[in-house]
Amino acid sequence: MHFVSDNTAPVHPRIMEAIVQANIGHAPAYGADAFTQEAEKLLERTFETDVRAWLVATGTAANALALSAMTPPYGGILCHEEAHINTDECGAPELFTGAKIIPLSGEHGKLTPDVVQARLARFAHGEHQVKPAVLSITNPTESGTLYTPDEVRALADLAHEHDMLLHVDGARFANAVAALSCHPDDLAGRAGVDVLTLGATKNGAMMGEAILFFHTSLAVEFPRRRKRAGQLVSKGRYLGAQFVAWLQDDLWLELALRANAMTRLLAARLDDFSAIRIDAPVETNMVFAWLPRALHEALVEEGVEYYCWREEADRVLARLVCSWHTAEEDIEAFITAIAAHAG
Amino acid sequence: MHFVSDNTAPVHPRIMEAIVQANIGHAPAYGADAFTQEAEKLLERTFETDVRAWLVATGTAANALALSAMTPPYGGILCHEEAHINTDECGAPELFTGAKIIPLSGEHGKLTPDVVQARLARFAHGEHQVKPAVLSITNPTESGTLYTPDEVRALADLAHEHDMLLHVDGARFANAVAALSCHPDDLAGRAGVDVLTLGATKNGAMMGEAILFFHTSLAVEFPRRRKRAGQLVSKGRYLGAQFVAWLQDDLWLELALRANAMTRLLAARLDDFSAIRIDAPVETNMVFAWLPRALHEALVEEGVEYYCWREEADRVLARLVCSWHTAEEDIEAFITAIAAHAG
Amino acid sequence: MHFVSDNTAPVHPRIMEAIVQANIGHAPAYGADAFTQEAEKLLERTFETDVRAWLVATGTAANALALSAMTPPYGGILCHEEAHINTDECGAPELFTGAKIIPLSGEHGKLTPDVVQARLARFAHGEHQVKPAVLSITNPTESGTLYTPDEVRALADLAHEHDMLLHVDGARFANAVAALSCHPDDLAGRAGVDVLTLGATKNGAMMGEAILFFHTSLAVEFPRRRKRAGQLVSKGRYLGAQFVAWLQDDLWLELALRANAMTRLLAARLDDFSAIRIDAPVETNMVFAWLPRALHEALVEEGVEYYCWREEADRVLARLVCSWHTAEEDIEAFITAIAAHAG
Amino acid sequence: MHFVSDNTAPVHPRIMEAIVQANIGHAPAYGADAFTQEAEKLLERTFETDVRAWLVATGTAANALALSAMTPPYGGILCHEEAHINTDECGAPELFTGAKIIPLSGEHGKLTPDVVQARLARFAHGEHQVKPAVLSITNPTESGTLYTPDEVRALADLAHEHDMLLHVDGARFANAVAALSCHPDDLAGRAGVDVLTLGATKNGAMMGEAILFFHTSLAVEFPRRRKRAGQLVSKGRYLGAQFVAWLQDDLWLELALRANAMTRLLAARLDDFSAIRIDAPVETNMVFAWLPRALHEALVEEGVEYYCWREEADRVLARLVCSWHTAEEDIEAFITAIAAHAG
Repeated sequence: MHFVSDNTAPVHPRIMEAIVQANIGHAPAYGADAFTQEAEKLLERTFETDVRAWLVATGTAANALALSAMTPPYGGILCHEEAHINTDECGAPELFTGAKIIPLSGEHGKLTPDVVQARLARFAHGEHQVKPAVLSITNPTESGTLYTPDEVRALADLAHEHDMLLHVDGARFANAVAALSCHPDDLAGRAGVDVLTLGATKNGAMMGEAILFFHTSLAVEFPRRRKRAGQLVSKGRYLGAQFVAWLQDDLWLELALRANAMTRLLAARLDDFSAIRIDAPVETNMVFAWLPRALHEALVEEGVEYYCWREEADRVLARLVCSWHTAEEDIEAFITAIAAHAG
Repeated sequence: MHFVSDNTAPVHPRIMEAIVQANIGHAPAYGADAFTQEAEKLLERTFETDVRAWLVATGTAANALALSAMTPPYGGILCHEEAHINTDECGAPELFTGAKIIPLSGEHGKLTPDVVQARLARFAHGEHQVKPAVLSITNPTESGTLYTPDEVRALADLAHEHDMLLHVDGARFANAVAALSCHPDDLAGRAGVDVLTLGATKNGAMMGEAILFFHTSLAVEFPRRRKRAGQLVSKGRYLGAQFVAWLQDDLWLELALRANAMTRLLAARLDDFSAIRIDAPVETNMVFAWLPRALHEALVEEGVEYYCWREEADRVLARLVCSWHTAEEDIEAFITAIAAHAG
Repeated sequence: MHFVSDNTAPVHPRIMEAIVQANIGHAPAYGADAFTQEAEKLLERTFETDVRAWLVATGTAANALALSAMTPPYGGILCHEEAHINTDECGAPELFTGAKIIPLSGEHGKLTPDVVQARLARFAHGEHQVKPAVLSITNPTESGTLYTPDEVRALADLAHEHDMLLHVDGARFANAVAALSCHPDDLAGRAGVDVLTLGATKNGAMMGEAILFFHTSLAVEFPRRRKRAGQLVSKGRYLGAQFVAWLQDDLWLELALRANAMTRLLAARLDDFSAIRIDAPVETNMVFAWLPRALHEALVEEGVEYYCWREEADRVLARLVCSWHTAEEDIEAFITAIAAHAG
Repeated sequence: MHFVSDNTAPVHPRIMEAIVQANIGHAPAYGADAFTQEAEKLLERTFETDVRAWLVATGTAANALALSAMTPPYGGILCHEEAHINTDECGAPELFTGAKIIPLSGEHGKLTPDVVQARLARFAHGEHQVKPAVLSITNPTESGTLYTPDEVRALADLAHEHDMLLHVDGARFANAVAALSCHPDDLAGRAGVDVLTLGATKNGAMMGEAILFFHTSLAVEFPRRRKRAGQLVSKGRYLGAQFVAWLQDDLWLELALRANAMTRLLAARLDDFSAIRIDAPVETNMVFAWLPRALHEALVEEGVEYYCWREEADRVLARLVCSWHTAEEDIEAFITAIAAHAG
């Protein structure tokens, strides 16, 4: 009963098989191998806007590096206060960019043009303040909610009007595309996104994130930024092979669809309990549910694993994440455990 | 005929098998899994001095992160001018430390106490200069030469006398231990080394380097440094599993011995050609050989791969690296190719 | 009618005279001169807690440098969202510290222990988050309000309980001491403050801020930090001479008392107008007053100068600052101008 | 007998008078005052190439800030190994730029195109190495020697051919212009210099350096860089007034001529002693002279002040600097002291 995150799941067999297959003979290092080159090509073909793609090892590095190509050191990066870049990367974006992160608030992890506009209006003191340079959103958000293509476009337009760029943290981007049944580019280049960090690790890969630049001018000398950040993987073929397998035959979307479907099932079953209240709308692969504290403690004791997003005196906001590997039985076992205590 | 580097070799089958075996069911993320914990324990047991170990994804990150725990931002890091941290990391050490790298010279990639002492004597102007904080050596060096335990100890003593710490870039540390037939700790904690970056990637692993702190006080809050550097791998079990297999039954030393032996063979065969001159002493798994330019061009045409360390009008200094995967036939094919042209 | 800031005022004649007097013959550079040494001694004597003092040229540098000695690069600096370090230093604190600034809210520029405590409770995810390292308050605040010695002590205690340090941005510290009629140390070392940046520029000096460390262990190697930040002034005697004159015979408090008194007068006269509403309590040398937009526009037209802190459709929040140089006639002229329009 | 540096001299009376005259009434802060604006205009007029000028408080900040606008964080800054930015700024250039400093050698503090070219040839490994971005020279050099306009032009051409920019650290630029009897722009914009840091402090001012951009595109958002570095002086008028007086009626060149003349006299008198050997050519306001150790010790005992540039067993390389304030009597007193010991 593991709902703590989608990164506790194993590597999908087709991806593991691709890694094993890549392990034959010599191959050029540092991403000059055929696997990486095919992966980058496949990534570029997945989107219809002109794009340049690079691979790195972790999501934190992907975000921080993407941002480092988008802002001068005297810039400001506007994002939701719950954004991963603001709360869960221990200052990596500040280290890699030199810039300042400016947190904004918004319901269920989402920013609206009004909130952004209002904050931008406060940048009126010239050199005393950083220059707003990047608007960064997470899609799906840290609350599992979605920005639609129109919502992304509205934020992109606003950013561009203010001479800013739009970054999307797509650690779970596949889940957004799957949920919206749209073309990947509808949430990316076509919607005005300038740089996308696209996560594979949480969606069946072993270790790999891509950074996609939809304006090639932003990508100039990006390889040096990546190297300087310690993210140029030596035996690159094993990163490349993962992405090839992940993208081939749309495995990435198949896995995301599966995770989303399990999440809907989980939410539906939880909703049957009057003691439990679903918080944010369930749109991708995360359920945020308020559990009475007594129930929470009983579940923890039984070894159910999830993340406590927030705690109050008599209740706990549990974040429950489904992955490509979550099975119906996992959910039923969880529901049975709840029923035993919350009858 | 791949002699360009040891990172073009594949992953050793036992390590790949360990990765595949780790791919079962759920596992805690971010290094809390059983594989990582066993890997860290095995690393710690490999050395006899009290040590704390952490895993990261790349050698550049390992070096830069290790240094970041060793120097204040107003510090100076003394190293050989050909050190990887000075020439091949695109400024990563400066980024992660904020400090200044100060290059020194020395034959065949090695620093001597005299050279270090002479440079330290020039730090006499107080706050106008950075504070010498770290002496960093590479063992084996970028020229494939070795520091013996006594040589390491002499440099450690000198560093400590000046209130500095000693860092060893051990990207090929296994090759040094194998060459010297010593205990690993003879080149590490026992010799006064404060922090060692221990590379597995070049010696049979897929992607993984360890940072070993021989003074636990230096390691305080190191996990935050690692996270801030984008080096906390999400599905850590696949890093951990590599190190477990690599260390078990001394596979790491077995692979290094093999690479060193192939290198000795290669050097001996090259030495038979009067037109070829071996440059640095061949002590681990690299041969530096001056090739007449005509020979070099003929070899390149035939697809032999090596790295041109330096070029002169009529000759080229070739760096030839053997890995655990280099076979006698590779060497013989290379020698045959040479004989055809340099007969 | 200059109420835009206290840094538009000239240098006090006694301070200018001291600068002229210092201009005789040769003097050692870089703060080794007799003036700087006397200034540092006077600063240290002004406080009763054991203290070490250094001089720099600007307030932004003073804050950023002070913080750089208080936090590791993976640290977090908690402050009010309107703090100068968060809004008006263009990222200097991030540059000098490498750390992350975390803005909190609170009425009239003040933080309460409750707000700080609530935010600290959200730091529960270990290495994924920065480590809360510094609590930084401004006294008097950016809204001109005060922290009393007891309030400072409560925040210091809270910080220390959480293994954090307390920084005070004292750009207008003299105004706080003067307003509270207390000993300077009551708002500093005795109240648990760890580092204070003490501004002279806004209070009669030409260019000079001091950084005071109440724990000498924090000050280790501070001269190197200062040099690395480009703040080691070459002809230091002209900084030193300013501080000597500023502190002698308590000139600094005399000037602050004068500015505060003028501010009280200004506030009292403004309060007579029913159309004008004083916003924050007037406790030091700033009045925040809501002016009807029509009045505001008329005043701007007449050349009255002040800072628009916030704007709404039909009114403007004016920040009016008095300095040591503000004269009763300035205030009367301003009031006359208002009366002409707001009768 | 103060020959330790030109920054131990007092402020020239005309500059001090200008400061006093600026101290009347209110003036806008942060460089919006009339003095600063006139200073910037005068600076811009002093050069004939299109130029943008800004003022800061210290030479270290001027250099580091200038460089920060010239290199990306993954860039390399080539300079002489004795350059102030490499040896005497405690890492400030690294802090402000994020880039890497690469020291080169050359006689008497000078770089030649050959040396630069040879080093550039070693940047052939793409993303593994920093990108050479800036060539920085000091004119006059740290050894008091000069680059002529033709020499500057040759280095500028070389830099530009390699897509690099040329920076000149002109801490004593006035001494170079005075020595060469050329137009200031002959050593700046006209010679291909991209950014010049122009020092006034060592040449009669109190505290002030200018940064001059000869390509206005480089200067975009420079005010934010300056603010972020803590170098936006609050009461800017006192900086501005210094530069106005310094430039008016070519006072800056008059003072430099005087310092240079005194230096020639000093060198000539020293040359009379057979025990003393002048080291570098005496071209501006510094003499480097080898003194027998016994003589050196005798002089120190008598209170003569100079800087020991290098020490050997039996002799000392003394750096003797003359300023605008050095008088013939100072030199004669020094010579008398020498004669007493070195007869």
